[in-house]
Amino acid sequence: MSLGTDTTAIDLAERVRQLDDTDLARVDAWWRANNYLTVGQIYLQDNALLREPLRPEHIKPRLLGHWGTSPGLSFLYAHLSRLIRITGQQALYLAGPGHGGPALVAAGWLEGTYSEVYPRVGRDGSGLHRLFRQFSAPGGIPSHVSVTTPGSIHEGGELGYVLVHAFGAVMDNPDLLALAVVGDGEAETGPLEGAWKGISFLNPARDGAVLPVLHLNGAKISGPTVLARKDPAEVRELFSGHGYDVIEVEGSDLPGMHHGFAAALATAWAAIRRIQESARDGGWDGSRPRWPMIVLRTPKGWTGPEVVDGTQVAGTFRAHQVPLSGVKDNPEHLAQLERWMRSYRPDELFDENGTPNADVLAANPAGDLRMSATPHANGGLLTRDLDLPDFRDYAIDVEAPAGTRAESTRKLGELMRDIYARNPDRFRLFSPDETNSNRLGAVFEVSDRAWAEKVYDSDISLSHQGRVMEVLSEHNCHGWLEGYTLTGRHGLFGTYEAFAMVSASQTVQHSKWLEEASHLSWRAKVPSLNILLTSTAWRNDHNGFSHQGPGLIQTVLTQRGTVSRIYLPPDANCLLSVADHCFRSRSYTNLIVIDKQPQLQYLTIDEAIEHCARGAGIWEWAGNDDGTSDPDIVLACAGDVVTMETVAAAQILTERLPHFRTRVVNVVDLMALQRPKDHPHGMEPMLFRELFTDHVDVVFAFHGFPGAIHQVVHGRPDADRFHVRGFIEEGTTTTPFDMTVKNKASRYHLVIDALNNARRTPPGASELKAWCEAQLAKHEQYVVEHLEDMPEVADWVLPARGTAPY
Amino acid sequence: MSLGTDTTAIDLAERVRQLDDTDLARVDAWWRANNYLTVGQIYLQDNALLREPLRPEHIKPRLLGHWGTSPGLSFLYAHLSRLIRITGQQALYLAGPGHGGPALVAAGWLEGTYSEVYPRVGRDGSGLHRLFRQFSAPGGIPSHVSVTTPGSIHEGGELGYVLVHAFGAVMDNPDLLALAVVGDGEAETGPLEGAWKGISFLNPARDGAVLPVLHLNGAKISGPTVLARKDPAEVRELFSGHGYDVIEVEGSDLPGMHHGFAAALATAWAAIRRIQESARDGGWDGSRPRWPMIVLRTPKGWTGPEVVDGTQVAGTFRAHQVPLSGVKDNPEHLAQLERWMRSYRPDELFDENGTPNADVLAANPAGDLRMSATPHANGGLLTRDLDLPDFRDYAIDVEAPAGTRAESTRKLGELMRDIYARNPDRFRLFSPDETNSNRLGAVFEVSDRAWAEKVYDSDISLSHQGRVMEVLSEHNCHGWLEGYTLTGRHGLFGTYEAFAMVSASQTVQHSKWLEEASHLSWRAKVPSLNILLTSTAWRNDHNGFSHQGPGLIQTVLTQRGTVSRIYLPPDANCLLSVADHCFRSRSYTNLIVIDKQPQLQYLTIDEAIEHCARGAGIWEWAGNDDGTSDPDIVLACAGDVVTMETVAAAQILTERLPHFRTRVVNVVDLMALQRPKDHPHGMEPMLFRELFTDHVDVVFAFHGFPGAIHQVVHGRPDADRFHVRGFIEEGTTTTPFDMTVKNKASRYHLVIDALNNARRTPPGASELKAWCEAQLAKHEQYVVEHLEDMPEVADWVLPARGTAPY
Repeated sequence: MSLGTDTTAIDLAERVRQLDDTDLARVDAWWRANNYLTVGQIYLQDNALLREPLRPEHIKPRLLGHWGTSPGLSFLYAHLSRLIRITGQQALYLAGPGHGGPALVAAGWLEGTYSEVYPRVGRDGSGLHRLFRQFSAPGGIPSHVSVTTPGSIHEGGELGYVLVHAFGAVMDNPDLLALAVVGDGEAETGPLEGAWKGISFLNPARDGAVLPVLHLNGAKISGPTVLARKDPAEVRELFSGHGYDVIEVEGSDLPGMHHGFAAALATAWAAIRRIQESARDGGWDGSRPRWPMIVLRTPKGWTGPEVVDGTQVAGTFRAHQVPLSGVKDNPEHLAQLERWMRSYRPDELFDENGTPNADVLAANPAGDLRMSATPHANGGLLTRDLDLPDFRDYAIDVEAPAGTRAESTRKLGELMRDIYARNPDRFRLFSPDETNSNRLGAVFEVSDRAWAEKVYDSDISLSHQGRVMEVLSEHNCHGWLEGYTLTGRHGLFGTYEAFAMVSASQTVQHSKWLEEASHLSWRAKVPSLNILLTSTAWRNDHNGFSHQGPGLIQTVLTQRGTVSRIYLPPDANCLLSVADHCFRSRSYTNLIVIDKQPQLQYLTIDEAIEHCARGAGIWEWAGNDDGTSDPDIVLACAGDVVTMETVAAAQILTERLPHFRTRVVNVVDLMALQRPKDHPHGMEPMLFRELFTDHVDVVFAFHGFPGAIHQVVHGRPDADRFHVRGFIEEGTTTTPFDMTVKNKASRYHLVIDALNNARRTPPGASELKAWCEAQLAKHEQYVVEHLEDMPEVADWVLPARGTAPY
Repeated sequence: MSLGTDTTAIDLAERVRQLDDTDLARVDAWWRANNYLTVGQIYLQDNALLREPLRPEHIKPRLLGHWGTSPGLSFLYAHLSRLIRITGQQALYLAGPGHGGPALVAAGWLEGTYSEVYPRVGRDGSGLHRLFRQFSAPGGIPSHVSVTTPGSIHEGGELGYVLVHAFGAVMDNPDLLALAVVGDGEAETGPLEGAWKGISFLNPARDGAVLPVLHLNGAKISGPTVLARKDPAEVRELFSGHGYDVIEVEGSDLPGMHHGFAAALATAWAAIRRIQESARDGGWDGSRPRWPMIVLRTPKGWTGPEVVDGTQVAGTFRAHQVPLSGVKDNPEHLAQLERWMRSYRPDELFDENGTPNADVLAANPAGDLRMSATPHANGGLLTRDLDLPDFRDYAIDVEAPAGTRAESTRKLGELMRDIYARNPDRFRLFSPDETNSNRLGAVFEVSDRAWAEKVYDSDISLSHQGRVMEVLSEHNCHGWLEGYTLTGRHGLFGTYEAFAMVSASQTVQHSKWLEEASHLSWRAKVPSLNILLTSTAWRNDHNGFSHQGPGLIQTVLTQRGTVSRIYLPPDANCLLSVADHCFRSRSYTNLIVIDKQPQLQYLTIDEAIEHCARGAGIWEWAGNDDGTSDPDIVLACAGDVVTMETVAAAQILTERLPHFRTRVVNVVDLMALQRPKDHPHGMEPMLFRELFTDHVDVVFAFHGFPGAIHQVVHGRPDADRFHVRGFIEEGTTTTPFDMTVKNKASRYHLVIDALNNARRTPPGASELKAWCEAQLAKHEQYVVEHLEDMPEVADWVLPARGTAPY
């Protein structure tokens, strides 16, 4: 950014503050044009430029859309565009009140971007016609800001995330200003309220700035908002308490509001530049800057109908959607609509061809500085591959399968440590205070936790320069990573499995964003959203039932195959291979599930690479079917703990019933089990048959809820033959082995299942089943007795392979 | 409550403020006893009373637990108990920093409640032995506050909900004070930050009070917290901005802190009583009261080891879990542990038998006033059945199946209106500002929206007396309802289907609470958590893909059958029957999914009652198999929109291929499809066979993701024959019919599926398939053309039965 010295910034801010008549005319014309286009999108299917008197047939048959928030959104957009024109600031606009879609669509159209990405919708009369008709119409565009809206990284759907997206976008983006408009409806949500604290993690020297504008227009769909009804002094206190310097602008008078807001924006921008320049000159004293924010109070539906049928509309919840209804059949409403639209003086705004006139166009910034065209909102354009070390260098030495134990995630921590070191500007780890707990702490060898609040001498791995993101909020972590990747950078969200559901709706909404984006050729692919779940249900030590829930797998399974990926690496080397793949991938939601506790290691790094590339494979060393196409049973598994149980079960079977042909199949890539038509990773039928045959029963030990496997094998030959053991919502504070017993997924259960479902009953089967039942009975007794005897809990973790514990 | 007049409250508050030596000794003794028991639970397996020198064999083999927050929790508990003793206040204690489980368990034990509900753990030496050994041990109890902890309605697992639970608990509970301890870790979560606004919805005359105590001890697992590092002036501003009068207590000196906190609590309680008495005397001026809150700053791990191995521990994150490690093998640590434990002077606290001595016991309130024994925390004890009107009185008149359309949820609104009227003290509807949008607005005929902020004359259905809860926060709605039902009252959370995932983790955690509670005989059953999802994926009008997601079904399916219920009523009369059942039920999570738009009505109220009682049934009027056990195809459906498509498909088939035997089965109760061993609602095999046969293929049109059906029919005879159509994550802004086409679940797709999977190919099958393909082709063309022609969108909703639209 060519902003130069302090003095220059002050000069530029002064130019923003002084809104002269020429510029006022431009800004106001642009704003009027935007409002006109907004109303037009909601109401008109014809006569777009009002070149003739408005008649019922010009009105859409069904009136849908959100007027209330739109004029405020476009007012802010117009003024920020002016600031960009004066200062050259790179800016990203995030519309929290996302149902104001028409205003953002109109902005893109006025800036020309809309026609660049959708040539059918030209910046002329016929394009205008299309622009109006496509809005909220079948086959058209939704009434909210969506993936189709140029300039957006933020869907106007589920509320609560505008600030986390903004903060994620500016991390490691020193030249970017993100203007985040927070509606007073959204401001009531938990995730939004939890997001103000982003400034406690922002480094003004290295990161860009977020300028929140809290837009209080008083009402949501059908009632007032809390913040709008609170005493303004309380509102000031609240945001001052959040750490912001509050700038207030209130009113509806024109042009007074233009002057007032220009001054507010100048003050805010000057404050931001002052903070940044001081920090970048090394002048940061270490106390958290008090960043500016703006509280803007304007009437809901500003510039729209004041009173309809004798009832106040502007300034109330009635302006939320369509303020004038039944326009086709109500001549009074039709006339009122026409007066309203003509109040923007369209003839001054558009030329004969329907192209915006010079005054309007002069309000646009140029080229990539247009907010609808900024590459920051199409982050794939800015994405640079990660400089990745060779993941093979972190491999665990595996001399024999299941011969050693290791904390698998620790190796991933080492890999990420070196990714941090090699990519100081484009990789971050996000975690709710669990980096060390999840054994990823190696990253602290090269980076601290990010922190903009006070740092004490006694603090460990905590500094203003830190770039590891820890905040006890899954919503912040997930949302920051979304903002970070959508603007072209890379990262991973690591969290406890049981609490991954806290941000499940964010996982869904982000996946839906990626799904939609894949249909838009102008949206470049972005780095994937990588989610690591650890501290899993099967191994929770002192935590109880509330900490046991592998539900996010179920949620990710519902998303479209074009974006969703689920990996259950059985060991550290497979995790390394999977992670390397995920860090290279684009526009996926990659879910990786693996425990952090010492678990058995199975594959050498070369075996792991091959295994992960296939997604699933037969572990010949674990079984004894010697490649026959006709084993007696297939023991399948996905997930580290249940893989251990499966390998142990196979050992029991092969040792005790050597003529019974047991095959072991391990699955890393859950989606590989689906049919190719259901998921691009789906195995071809022949490969599926090679692993699972098409007739032999399969006892499948799964990390998550069994229903997940029933879903994914649906449609495979004779899917009924899959008998799934998994987490069946049984748990408490107990030993890892007892967890497998409680959930009927222990080695003994698997052996019994295998014998019960095998194609033939081998000699000795009933003796072996009886032995297994006896082992389970002994276990139950052991549990009861040893609560009293307080055993060495460590012993409860069973030895490596099938050895019986009792 | 017998609190009497204003003067009495002031007198009582003065008595709380003046902590005399006798009472100081009692409070301090109780607190020391609690701290001793907390440390003992973490460390000792023997020598519980330190009657002999501590030796390695007395130490547990594995040290697990959370010390850091515990002394603060017990300090607060001790002082609130004293307030209760003096004032007779009914109080509920909610421990947000829920990992401080040992402190709350110790409190229950000291109060005698623990031994009352778990007689094995007596209030004596041998009970103490058990108390210590069961903690964080296999087969014992978790280290966090859980369902097993008497006095708790709040699991110490997933963080963020302590305030919403507290606010829900005090609604319509005028005599209850909920002390909600907010840890500074939890304070970082979004849901918690969004919960402070509870006071904007609290009526001091009718509701009880929440006293939040923000306990700033500085650190979470491995780093500092944001609030602890902020300038205290900012923290004051923040909470003053949230609307509270902030009372601060800081330090670690004793007995100074006892005096300081007693005074703070007295001030807070006096303020609460003043607000309540003024409001109850009719003196509320209508401005939102500024309720008190307390900010308590004490060192993390207060009274624990200051320095270990030369490193500062108390006051840092190192005190979070187990401050002294390796005690068994490290004689220095062993000695330090012994000094630490003896610093509480156990010999003064427990008699020879291990029973707490008189001074300690004197600190306990009596009977039900003990917080561990309060019936408010075991709400089933206080639950009174709803006075329900006869739901038949709200029935829609259905002369012929599929002959009329109605907004099904509107009838539920009328039912709830009358439930509100009949139960002014024990029923509430919770919604994120969508009551009207979801067609439930009839409730506003008898109650307004609850609102404690300013009310304007122009407001509609908004008042201080209102009891309909609208806040734009699914987290608040869900959490308030949890708190409301766990304290014995009834309600429903109504929300948009797509955004139900926002609170999915709350649904999971509450279900897990109910699952655990079902194992505890002392926990009485509570009213069910009823969730109504509407504005469904299939009918979103101007909203787009981000608003289309039926994922909560998948989540509820993972929960245990003992608590989870999923209903998909096809029409209004079925909805009435289902709702009546849910309002009468106990300790379930009831998920009800139905659209709010005008949809076809099928069953008379009597038919609906019978249909819902069975859970699923054959609709003979829709098919033509005339009760044969051998239809050619079964068309099954669950969910209103897909039921319409199924009925239409059946009409096409029966009219065009009259000799082809089509059966239609509608499913209301999704769980009925599971096997009896998988769910208590699971149909017996014979009934399942009566509906679905055991060999005929089933084309199943499902409201949600198809995988849900694949899961629930697993294990049924030849489950592979179920071919499921459902929401396959295809959507946009389009017509309802186009949504069914995009997701391959339209009537035409169902007909083609039926013919492709039927047991025999009837004459005319290929012609009919070709006709269906042609209809779909016409539809595609229609979509393309009509975007340009802007048709009457209403026409896109198809006529009642199988009529082809083109």
